[in-house]
Formats: sequence, structure tokens, C-alpha cells
Amino acid sequence: MRVFVTGGAGFIGSNLVDRLLQDGHQVTAYDNLSTGQPRFLQDALKQPGFALIEGDILDAERLTHSMREHELVFHFAANADVRFGTNHPKRDLEQNTIGTWQVLEAMRANGVKRLAFSSTGSVYGEPNVVPTPEDAPFPIQTSLYAASKLAGEGQIAAYCEGFGMQAWIFRFVSILGERYSHGHVFDFYKQLQEHPERLAVLGDGHQKKSYLYVQDCIDAMLLALRQATARVNILNLGTDEYVEVNDSIDEIVSELGLSPARSYSGGIRGWVGDSPLIHLDCARMRQLGWAPRLDIRQSVRETVRWLQANPWVYELRGET
Amino acid sequence: MRVFVTGGAGFIGSNLVDRLLQDGHQVTAYDNLSTGQPRFLQDALKQPGFALIEGDILDAERLTHSMREHELVFHFAANADVRFGTNHPKRDLEQNTIGTWQVLEAMRANGVKRLAFSSTGSVYGEPNVVPTPEDAPFPIQTSLYAASKLAGEGQIAAYCEGFGMQAWIFRFVSILGERYSHGHVFDFYKQLQEHPERLAVLGDGHQKKSYLYVQDCIDAMLLALRQATARVNILNLGTDEYVEVNDSIDEIVSELGLSPARSYSGGIRGWVGDSPLIHLDCARMRQLGWAPRLDIRQSVRETVRWLQANPWVYELRGET
Repeated sequence: MRVFVTGGAGFIGSNLVDRLLQDGHQVTAYDNLSTGQPRFLQDALKQPGFALIEGDILDAERLTHSMREHELVFHFAANADVRFGTNHPKRDLEQNTIGTWQVLEAMRANGVKRLAFSSTGSVYGEPNVVPTPEDAPFPIQTSLYAASKLAGEGQIAAYCEGFGMQAWIFRFVSILGERYSHGHVFDFYKQLQEHPERLAVLGDGHQKKSYLYVQDCIDAMLLALRQATARVNILNLGTDEYVEVNDSIDEIVSELGLSPARSYSGGIRGWVGDSPLIHLDCARMRQLGWAPRLDIRQSVRETVRWLQANPWVYELRGET
Repeated sequence: MRVFVTGGAGFIGSNLVDRLLQDGHQVTAYDNLSTGQPRFLQDALKQPGFALIEGDILDAERLTHSMREHELVFHFAANADVRFGTNHPKRDLEQNTIGTWQVLEAMRANGVKRLAFSSTGSVYGEPNVVPTPEDAPFPIQTSLYAASKLAGEGQIAAYCEGFGMQAWIFRFVSILGERYSHGHVFDFYKQLQEHPERLAVLGDGHQKKSYLYVQDCIDAMLLALRQATARVNILNLGTDEYVEVNDSIDEIVSELGLSPARSYSGGIRGWVGDSPLIHLDCARMRQLGWAPRLDIRQSVRETVRWLQANPWVYELRGET
């Protein structure tokens, strides 16, 4: 199959590209390289079935032209900066809401009918039902990021209804693993590189977070594409467990052999719009026959090991 | 209070303007006059506390400048063409999703903290719970229009959380009454003006629809602004009843003294994306002490009488 991956040089995107190539597909990665790393694609670039196109999803002409003759789109390109959303509210609107619309229009122009989309568990806001199922009570949005992903979901569903497309919308927890370079674990790792003796933690450390290992995430998506046959398939993607931020820190410092003094900024939220608890009910995905191979603590350790083996990522990101 | 009404020359907007002026407020109507009618504001324009500004919500500079020194915004400007959404998918994105974002940005630039927003009962898609409450199961969107309104809701809630604003989001059923000039009843009225002896009906005529009289709608919004005190107040706005399209036709033809032969296109939907049943649970609004004064059949008749008394509206719209 000819598969088009927006954000294909990113963390999840590049891992997916490798897997799709392994499975014998032809793959085009489309990425503006604003956060994606061509180095993530160094193996892929050696393969004849692969092409990397440097382009922005907001460049309608380039996007539409590049997508010609593909059969399936994974739309992963997005602004993933949740925490500082209020510093640049236009970014979520443009890169996520309008960007997703551009992808849908490019699909329509090219007659591409199948779309997989990376949404987020944070669309549930601060849910009353935990673990939270896909049909939880209609939520109220608490971050610009989640609002822009919800806008994307809505557009996709409406395009499916209006233009006969089929979609798989995945509401992710935070993903960990190889090529992870943004978020929680990375921030702690970075701090400990700079000052191994102390660690500053936003919030009270009891925020509950759920994580999923990137290879488990990819297994789930590929399985869902085969097994879930509705017009619009909405699937939570996480583990049945959660950890507190403190537990996650325990794994990181243990893996690094450190014992830093921890200081807490306090409060139940790490920042305005942070959800104190993202814990998804993933029964729907499990009913398709999927189960994660790594638990959260294993995923955290796997991630730390990868960061240690790839200091260039830390050096690159540490600068910003 | 100084109140800013986007879409203030439209059907609901202009009725609201009149009411706000009656209640002693200073009012600015901001409207690009694409569907709004200055004639709806002929009484308002005689009053010193009123200003009409011809401008587009996508014109950020003009919008921001015009909104200075207001304390409350009613954001009613929108593309309201639900049925033909798939003919021009960019319109919902631009005028509704991006337009709402521009209004939020203008509010932020001016320090305006309070927003009332006209959303729609069609954000519930095809709900499993009927009558549908505000916290119904997380819906799947079925029209570009509803998806764009949902995107607007999400942005508003995120701005409330991120920038300390307060919002009242009203999920309307279809509104009827004075200055109604778009939708169901209008289409039937127009047909019967052209050929009183026959009436073509989309769908099977059994689509259930709920309507609300525009003055009841305005009563409800103004009451909610006084009584509902959450950061984000989401309120269904409709009647506890519904009628079938056929019932609505009964009232129209009876009011006009006609007996047209009815032909049906068939199917449970009038068009792709049409919801076969929008019937909202309005208990939350009623608990604030509100009740509609007219029932649906009375609203339909009131609307037909107004259309008869204002042939200029029919002549204007009949051309397009």
C-alpha cells in the first residue's frame, strides 16, 4: 500500500515509517522539519520504497501534489506544545485545526479515502468518569491544544460523513520510547543532566499520568486499521494503569543511578490547563485483540536508556 | 452596559439588539451584511445608544478596534448554511472556526472578559440519548457546520481557562419568529408563494425537529447571563417538545389557507448530514427559571404571519 505520513520525521511518525517499511509498504513522510529530525529517518532513507518530502501542511499546493496516488494517510503533523499554548494561541489554530483541514482537502482533491489521526486524551478535559471511555460525558475543553485536536476530530468526522471517507481517530496518552524528545520525562532528564543533585517538579508530584510505549502504540493503530470497520472509529490508546509524576521520577533517577533532592512548585496542576488526571479506558482497543507489551515503568526506563544512548537529541533540544 | 453583538444585523442578532436597547444598554452591532439586513435595525438606528459597524469578523484590525471599551460580547456572526456545507467546506472553517478565534483574540486584546456564543444542537450528531442533555455521551460530528461550531465551543472554553474569561455557550435548536429568513419554514413558504398547489419535501416528512421562538430564546440568554455563574456555562436552548416536518407543514398551510399536494424525496434524512432528530433536554435552562412562552406550532404560525407582513424579505431571498 502507498502510505502518506504527515509529521513523518517526528517521534511517533518516524517510528511508524520504519514499521510500515518493514511491513513492505511504500511510504512518503511529509514534514516541515520544525521539530522532526531527518536523523530519525536515516534507516528509512536507505530504502527504495521511501521518500521524505520537506513541506508544511499549510502549503496546500505542495501537500496536495505530494499526496497524489496514496491510499492511506496518517496525519501526525501538529503543534504538540501543550503547556505553553497560551503564549501563542495562533499556533494551535493554524498548525492543528487549519492544518488538519488542509490534510482533509488534499485527501479530497486526490480521492484518498482513509485517514488515521493522532488526537489526545486531553480532549476529555477534566473528566468525571475515570478511567475515561470514548463515550464519556461531552467534555469541556481546558487547553488550546486539546481544543484544536477536538476541532480536528470534528472536521474529520464531518468529512467522513460528507465525502465518504473513513477515519481512525486515536486519543493518545503521552507516548514514550525510542526518539522521544519532548515532554515530561525529557524535561526531568534534561534537568538531571544539568544538575544531577536536584530536580524541580511542577505541581505537587501527585498528578496522575498514563503513558504508552511507542511500539505498542503503533501495534494498536495498525491493528485498528485492520479490525475497526466503522466509518469513524474513535479509540483511546493508553495502558490500563497510571503512575504519579513521582513514580515516573523514581524510575528515571533509579535508571540514572541518581538521588536528587526534589522540590515541588505545588498545586494539583503542573500548569494552567494541565489535567491532573489523564487515565483512559482502553477496553475498546483491547476488544480488538490488542495489549501493550511494556508497562509504564518499563516504558519510562526504555526512554531514559534511549536518551542516554542518543546524547545528540539532548544537545539539540537542550539549546532551545 | 456596553454590549458588542457580532452578526447584529442578522435574524437573532437584530432582535437581541432591540431588546438590549429596550433594557437601556449601549449596543454596537458588528456585521459584514453578507446575510444581515440593515432594515432589521431601522428602529435601533434611531437610538443614540446604538451603532452599526459594517465589518467582517475576519478583519482582525477592524474587529479589535471596534470592540474597544465593551464589557460583553454576543458572538452570533456565522455561516449558518448547514445543508450545503459540503459545497463549500472552507466557509465553515473560515467564518465559524477561525471567525470565533478572531473574536476571542479581539476580546483578549481589549480585556473583554464575557462572551455569549450561539452554538447548535447539531453538535450532538446523531445522539443515542433523546431528549439530549448537555452532558450526553461525547458525540461524533456529522456536518461541517456542527463541527465548526464545536471547534468554536472548544476554543472558547480553552480561552476561559487560559485567559480568565467567562462564557455562556447556547446550543440552539432552530429559531423561528420575526425576521426569520433562512431554513425550513422559509423554504416551504417560498415554494408555496411560487406554486400554492404543490409542496416538495426533502426526506420522508417524519424528521423530528424542535424549534424555539426568537423572543423566548433572547429571554433565556439574558436570564442565563444573570443566573449561570460557572466559568463555562453550556446550555441547551429549545422547547421540551418536537414536531415532525409534516406537523410544521400543517401549520404553514393552515395559516396560509392552502392545501398543496405534498411530494417526498424519501429517506430519514433531508440531506447528507441532516440529523433525523434534534430534540434537546432543556432542564438546565429551565432550572434557572426560564420557560418558553410560545409552543412550536405557535412559533411556526407567528413566523408565517411575519413573512406575510414582510414580503420584501421573501423577494430579497427569493432571488438567490
